[in-house]
Amino acid sequence: MHAYRTHTCGQLRAADAGKPARLSGWVHRKRDHGQLLFVDLRDHYGITQCVVDVSAPLFAEVEALKSESVVCFTGKVVERVAETVNPNLPTGEVELRIEAVELLSAADPLPLQVNAEEDAGEETRLRYRYLDLRREKMQRNIVLRGQVINSIRRRMIELGFTEFQTPILTADSPEGARAYLVPSRIHPGKFYALPQAPQMFKQLLMVAGFDRYFQIAPCFRDEDARADRSPGEFYQLDFEMSFVTQDDVFAALEPVMHGVFEEFGRGRSVTPPPFPRIPYDEALLKYGSDKPDLRNPIEIVDVTADFAGGGFGIFSRLIEQGAVVRAIPAPGAAKQARSWFDKLNSWAQHEGKAGLGYIVYGEEGEARGPIAKNLEAVRVARIMETAGLKNGDAVFFACDKPKAAAAFAGQVRSKLGQELDLIEKDAFRFCWIVDFPMYELDEETGKIEFSHNPFSMPQGGLEALETMDPLEIKAFQYDIVCNGVELSSGAIRNHLPDVMVKAFEIAGYGAEEVEARFAGLFNALRYGAPPHGGSAPGIDRIVMLLADEPNIREIIAFPLNQRAEDLMMKAPAAATPERLRELSLKLALPPVKK
Amino acid sequence: MHAYRTHTCGQLRAADAGKPARLSGWVHRKRDHGQLLFVDLRDHYGITQCVVDVSAPLFAEVEALKSESVVCFTGKVVERVAETVNPNLPTGEVELRIEAVELLSAADPLPLQVNAEEDAGEETRLRYRYLDLRREKMQRNIVLRGQVINSIRRRMIELGFTEFQTPILTADSPEGARAYLVPSRIHPGKFYALPQAPQMFKQLLMVAGFDRYFQIAPCFRDEDARADRSPGEFYQLDFEMSFVTQDDVFAALEPVMHGVFEEFGRGRSVTPPPFPRIPYDEALLKYGSDKPDLRNPIEIVDVTADFAGGGFGIFSRLIEQGAVVRAIPAPGAAKQARSWFDKLNSWAQHEGKAGLGYIVYGEEGEARGPIAKNLEAVRVARIMETAGLKNGDAVFFACDKPKAAAAFAGQVRSKLGQELDLIEKDAFRFCWIVDFPMYELDEETGKIEFSHNPFSMPQGGLEALETMDPLEIKAFQYDIVCNGVELSSGAIRNHLPDVMVKAFEIAGYGAEEVEARFAGLFNALRYGAPPHGGSAPGIDRIVMLLADEPNIREIIAFPLNQRAEDLMMKAPAAATPERLRELSLKLALPPVKK
Repeated sequence: MHAYRTHTCGQLRAADAGKPARLSGWVHRKRDHGQLLFVDLRDHYGITQCVVDVSAPLFAEVEALKSESVVCFTGKVVERVAETVNPNLPTGEVELRIEAVELLSAADPLPLQVNAEEDAGEETRLRYRYLDLRREKMQRNIVLRGQVINSIRRRMIELGFTEFQTPILTADSPEGARAYLVPSRIHPGKFYALPQAPQMFKQLLMVAGFDRYFQIAPCFRDEDARADRSPGEFYQLDFEMSFVTQDDVFAALEPVMHGVFEEFGRGRSVTPPPFPRIPYDEALLKYGSDKPDLRNPIEIVDVTADFAGGGFGIFSRLIEQGAVVRAIPAPGAAKQARSWFDKLNSWAQHEGKAGLGYIVYGEEGEARGPIAKNLEAVRVARIMETAGLKNGDAVFFACDKPKAAAAFAGQVRSKLGQELDLIEKDAFRFCWIVDFPMYELDEETGKIEFSHNPFSMPQGGLEALETMDPLEIKAFQYDIVCNGVELSSGAIRNHLPDVMVKAFEIAGYGAEEVEARFAGLFNALRYGAPPHGGSAPGIDRIVMLLADEPNIREIIAFPLNQRAEDLMMKAPAAATPERLRELSLKLALPPVKK
Repeated sequence: MHAYRTHTCGQLRAADAGKPARLSGWVHRKRDHGQLLFVDLRDHYGITQCVVDVSAPLFAEVEALKSESVVCFTGKVVERVAETVNPNLPTGEVELRIEAVELLSAADPLPLQVNAEEDAGEETRLRYRYLDLRREKMQRNIVLRGQVINSIRRRMIELGFTEFQTPILTADSPEGARAYLVPSRIHPGKFYALPQAPQMFKQLLMVAGFDRYFQIAPCFRDEDARADRSPGEFYQLDFEMSFVTQDDVFAALEPVMHGVFEEFGRGRSVTPPPFPRIPYDEALLKYGSDKPDLRNPIEIVDVTADFAGGGFGIFSRLIEQGAVVRAIPAPGAAKQARSWFDKLNSWAQHEGKAGLGYIVYGEEGEARGPIAKNLEAVRVARIMETAGLKNGDAVFFACDKPKAAAAFAGQVRSKLGQELDLIEKDAFRFCWIVDFPMYELDEETGKIEFSHNPFSMPQGGLEALETMDPLEIKAFQYDIVCNGVELSSGAIRNHLPDVMVKAFEIAGYGAEEVEARFAGLFNALRYGAPPHGGSAPGIDRIVMLLADEPNIREIIAFPLNQRAEDLMMKAPAAATPERLRELSLKLALPPVKK
């Protein structure tokens, strides 16, 4: 017989009855039923009920076992009588009659309960993560994470991608965030940087001719914590392809995403490929966001023309000053009480707005509300038509400069979706946002800046850069969005040095500066670079969506806390003077606050 | 037609003749045959011959294409006439008649040749790695690496292991090497460490109940470069299992190793599981090494008894002072000329030894050589028997203190294996070295120290620690070795706090020190820890063996150079004063050497 187990704790069935068996696991729960003592023995695979009679010589030994101690029971598998079968447990038809006990590891009193779903608080959970991870939900989430990553890998490889490992000790790169630095011992005063993303290396692999790259890539940003981003490190499905157009990138990623979400979605509906492509400008107009949640059926409509010069003075005056009016339909909201509209108005004021104007169209088409009182009837009717409303609907308005109006209309859309319970349940709704602007105007400085990634290919190439208004130029840049969560940006890259120099020139950078700052990639493009593009969906966000967890710390085995500390392993920690000397560093601590 | 390609450069066959096609790739080679100009167009998948007639309008454009420029050819697939078919090329039955050309990216003159196997030197190769990687051998090696890792993953998952990601920003751990430090911005004066291995975390995952963990894990050591270890980072197949004995760990890894080496060994023979288990003491005796190359059939034998008190005075005197004599058979070496033996003697002197004694047994059994002259005939005959020699063999001797004698005998064994061409060709010979000593004596200080991993379980547990001579205690610690290359250490871990405290006490550490230095793991063992063990074979070494490459830089896409620099991306590099201030650091540069 094996020293520790003949079966796992999830394995025994009625067919095993009568056999000898040995199980090892954790003491999940003990129940004393007078004559009999039951121990639920737990391992990674399940729970098996083990039992000992009060008269047995080893009763005292079993009774003394503390929760979460590790124990090895040897005994006989016995079929349970019908009324004691536990249909909720795969092993519920049998139990193990304990004939021998070996305590493999005794547990001290526990700082958090493993067998109950009580919240021990983040600090305790992370300090004793090895206990927290024993909880059923955490076992499920972390295993799900492993399965999702494995499925993604399998799908990428089936599509002809090869996985690479790119350097982790590398140079700082222009990803826009703050990189972690690693002092070099051999080169005093110099530092490696941990990659914010393997962007440069994946492009270099394309220049090196590898054609289809991917990596479940660790990325590092020295940024403060957010609910959806762990401080420190995170993982992305980084991929890149050569000789492709934007549509080829979409066609590669869509079946992977669709497949993974179907496989692990537990029956939730998934947008079938091809995913909708929504131009950036259209997304801002229709959804008030470049991360639209398409589970929300509400679509925003521009009704500026319907208000311009009309009797609702507040709006018509703002329109004269450059404002636009966006209508956010509220289907079926006419039946809501006045207090419901008042509550939304208060919410808008809480969001820093003057209020939230609306028109209610009653069951007979009669218009109600403060705006309808002042606006000409023909305009009220036209709005109904423009916004696609029917009797019994209401409509809300956001009137502001275009950018602000779009953003607020997006907020109202989300709010109404929730308030009216319109959000589609049990669904993953994907889309691509495409045609991002290449440049934008910095409203403070009046300067033209890159909107997103400066290394994206401008649509129209060199000719567009030389002839068009920069603010009109679109980039081959795209985001993939699921349920309002941006999973990734991506782009067709700029693989032409002269187009790159021109693109940077428009944003105010000289050719020398481009060559100096991005030497590695820029030089490489001079030796024959293929057109290429890719994307990098966030693994953590994908797992959060699938596990239905709003906090990233629920889907990572050993996350840092919000202060970027590992309380269990005690990181970060002081370095010895010898280590600092070896690294040619001295501390320059800020003055202690009193 | 697709913007860039209808087929890859490795795809067209005779059956495609007559069809239109579009190919994109690199200009690998141009050949001018008077009336016809041939361009070998290369991509990741292969090479296709493209051809244009001197009279064609686009001849000049094709002729002007520089090597390694990226170009898109559109044209018609044409079957080659029999005498021009190239049987070495999968696409060799056809060629593409070029009807349109688009230059996608022009190449400057090249700093290294892609289409020739000349050595451009390490500095040039790494500075222009994206060109170096285009070379056929590098494409093959890097893709092999990806395939090997994928195969390992698949096999581990099939065995029921789950892949985890353990933290990269963590605390320094007692792996014995020097860790890289990462200054914390949020916690001035404190540092993260990059993991030397995920040892602590994988053990914590076992304590957390995950049962079977693996990870293709990046590991980081701030150590100087070696041929078989990249400075900076390397990857290992890190795995760990709960409720297992040493044999269970072997049974898990052996089919993975055997399978991977069979799959990618290109017909080379692979040791079938179970791999031989060789106790450490036996390995030192028989092979003079704990990393024996079993392709070498020579086995060392102790012949101390045969020399003790005998007529060969040098050895008998040394034996009286504690030396041993090890015999290294040289099968069939009797036919070698005297000069061959002299050359080996010189080699031994070059290695710092007094010389290399030997006996030659002629075809009639007659013994020759300086030792045979002085040693009694009965002893000469007994040595023949002890060492398992036959007529026509020779035997060499290493006489020294046991450790030194074993090491030198191992060197002689390797040397003889090569000189006599005895090393088995085209084979991967695996073994496990088991029963490593738990402790050893530091010969300088006379103190007892851990031999290897202090966290391994001593054989015999607490009782052994309390009752045995520490130098006699073995650990459940093992190495897996292939062709003389140590792929990994591993162990059944010490999961019992009291055994751990005792084990450290023997090596001179107090309980408080153990608790303080290894708090994370030590605390965890108090809350119910399963017996567990694992290993961590080096990925880079596995790929080196399979690719038959002696230098690790041939199987890593973007390695640092020997000075731990990335010449292409310019890492490490100076940090700005702002960044240093943000990290509460000042440089303390060593004085400039004059």
